[in-house]
Amino acid sequence: MGTTTAVLARDCAEALQELRDRAPLVQCLTNIVVAQWTANVLLATGAAPAMVDNPEEAGAFAAIAGGVLINLGTPYAETAVAMERAVTSATRAGTPWVLDPVAAGALAWRTEIARKLLAESPTVLRGNASEVMAMTGGTGGKGVESVDSPEAALPAARELAGVHGTVVAVSGPVDHLTDGERVVRVGNGHVLLTRVTGVGCALGALMAAFAAVVDDPLVAAVSATATLTVCADSAAGQVRGPGSFAVALLDELALLTPQDLATRVLLS
Amino acid sequence: MGTTTAVLARDCAEALQELRDRAPLVQCLTNIVVAQWTANVLLATGAAPAMVDNPEEAGAFAAIAGGVLINLGTPYAETAVAMERAVTSATRAGTPWVLDPVAAGALAWRTEIARKLLAESPTVLRGNASEVMAMTGGTGGKGVESVDSPEAALPAARELAGVHGTVVAVSGPVDHLTDGERVVRVGNGHVLLTRVTGVGCALGALMAAFAAVVDDPLVAAVSATATLTVCADSAAGQVRGPGSFAVALLDELALLTPQDLATRVLLS
Amino acid sequence: MGTTTAVLARDCAEALQELRDRAPLVQCLTNIVVAQWTANVLLATGAAPAMVDNPEEAGAFAAIAGGVLINLGTPYAETAVAMERAVTSATRAGTPWVLDPVAAGALAWRTEIARKLLAESPTVLRGNASEVMAMTGGTGGKGVESVDSPEAALPAARELAGVHGTVVAVSGPVDHLTDGERVVRVGNGHVLLTRVTGVGCALGALMAAFAAVVDDPLVAAVSATATLTVCADSAAGQVRGPGSFAVALLDELALLTPQDLATRVLLS
Repeated sequence: MGTTTAVLARDCAEALQELRDRAPLVQCLTNIVVAQWTANVLLATGAAPAMVDNPEEAGAFAAIAGGVLINLGTPYAETAVAMERAVTSATRAGTPWVLDPVAAGALAWRTEIARKLLAESPTVLRGNASEVMAMTGGTGGKGVESVDSPEAALPAARELAGVHGTVVAVSGPVDHLTDGERVVRVGNGHVLLTRVTGVGCALGALMAAFAAVVDDPLVAAVSATATLTVCADSAAGQVRGPGSFAVALLDELALLTPQDLATRVLLS
Repeated sequence: MGTTTAVLARDCAEALQELRDRAPLVQCLTNIVVAQWTANVLLATGAAPAMVDNPEEAGAFAAIAGGVLINLGTPYAETAVAMERAVTSATRAGTPWVLDPVAAGALAWRTEIARKLLAESPTVLRGNASEVMAMTGGTGGKGVESVDSPEAALPAARELAGVHGTVVAVSGPVDHLTDGERVVRVGNGHVLLTRVTGVGCALGALMAAFAAVVDDPLVAAVSATATLTVCADSAAGQVRGPGSFAVALLDELALLTPQDLATRVLLS
Repeated sequence: MGTTTAVLARDCAEALQELRDRAPLVQCLTNIVVAQWTANVLLATGAAPAMVDNPEEAGAFAAIAGGVLINLGTPYAETAVAMERAVTSATRAGTPWVLDPVAAGALAWRTEIARKLLAESPTVLRGNASEVMAMTGGTGGKGVESVDSPEAALPAARELAGVHGTVVAVSGPVDHLTDGERVVRVGNGHVLLTRVTGVGCALGALMAAFAAVVDDPLVAAVSATATLTVCADSAAGQVRGPGSFAVALLDELALLTPQDLATRVLLS
């Protein structure tokens, strides 16, 4: 506890307070599996979700949203067009946006889409270790699950951060986040997070929410990670299995105070 | 309690009994965020959901369904075609149908779709205050959330009801419903309803279910609102946050008796 | 208990142990209503879901997946193409696959799709009685619900099994499963399973998961049915209604031991 980390516990607490005060509008272009869960995670935490993911509206909405999530969980030709338009519009309007290249490396078509979107310099790139490594040309994981550790992906994460001017967040037992220079680790991960679908996807959405209210994208990404994993820790202590865990996690997100977050987050 | 309202508590109780006895088949053309939740709300209450939303089948199915929901939460070009066909078929067959113009006013493309569908005279138009006001040409809310009160939307609701021969239901802390002449207020709203995604969407589906078994569309819309909000009140008293609230709300919908509903609904 | 059934309780226990040990990758081309629920059922039980359902990737992924689910709950033109490609690829690669013809018989377009897919000889065909009977040319049920009993569908199931070389699983109060010669009944069904959307859909996904780790498709289908219904029994004893039932069911799937499964499954 004696060393100073690049992002402080109190930065996370202040970011959460900002999110609660401003209830940022978060546009999600996400997958059919986790759309409801993602919206509920955003609502519970205090943000305002809007799943505007069609080509006709995605661009215009990205200009007025506080933050945008682009998640490649179940892409279709039409969604891919909507994503391009949302990113172009977000970039022009200065809206922060998060890229979550789900299963990149394991599947060729979406990997190509993910690389094109990454070239547009997202505010945050979020994935598991295999997905992040695939963004540098690696071959990726087994479907949607990582076969690599966050530690192993850190060099790739630093490289991508430097090349694209993005914060890279690698999820895992200990989350690793970097803007290319600073590195922050969040140590509150819990194994039950891997037994519920869409936790990583919801984390990407939370990063877009925090990026809407915090200037430093690394602080935003770390605060989102801290918020989700601290609440997961709380939830895990009360439950019998993954069903009740997911329910309790939503409750904890709504109950979490900035003070609790600052006290409990494990940063290094 | 001395005054008589246009819809009585015992009308709601009888409607719920009808719904339980007849288990109406409700076709939902709804959004990817709330499809599961909507189906579970219908099942818990006693209706039979069927999410038939492709252009090939939507028209034929609307002729045999008991009621149809058209919800514009995440419209795509293909869904919009399916919606047109379902509405044409429902109108021809005399199947009651509900229009829920999610985020109308805030997004241009869907607002146009919503206005075209409204011109087909839905049995019920359901939305928050901003959405309803947008249907008369207003500019609408912030994304999917209302920036206006139900009271403020009542003139617009009356106008739309008169022009289109539809019941208009405006959701909010106190729900306001009108068929252009009669006005009914349901006062059981709870703030937790705004912390779970898709409650309004599910309410639209319940209105289609009640309209399938009750002749007077105002009674159907009021009964659906009463059922959902009375159960929300019950659920809110037992829970820690929005996760457990959503779970308890489904339980309460299954447990609610017509007698309970009549006793607890706050009509004015 | 004195008679010997074609599949034994200890076969189910061994299959579950295999599933836990090998965490098979299950590709799901399923509907927008149950995608999240299906993924969570697979994760809770011990499998690894991947909802790869676009035409660009579905074929390639079916060659590397352990098992594939094709579910016709909400088909679209694009999904239908993806399904064809996944089935062609699965067949070529020897990947077991499950066909769930949701609402076949009640809706013409999907019935045609279902019959074409059935002609490709799925490893398992799973449906309710009306859906299975519709596959032989019957006219089917009321929307997604069965109007026939599993017993009544057994002749159709035997016929389909013989013609297509597939195991046919008919869900209902007592599940009936046959490979054309052997017939197995699983008697753990609970009425609450009909009050939560997507339980049958998730059962199809579990069958794909078990077929990925067990050579005999009848053992796989019976083990999946046993796992889900034994857990449903456990869950039903603890809950107030369908909301808490769905949550408890996920918990029970994660907690179930092979020993418990063997002790509690009712085979005949």
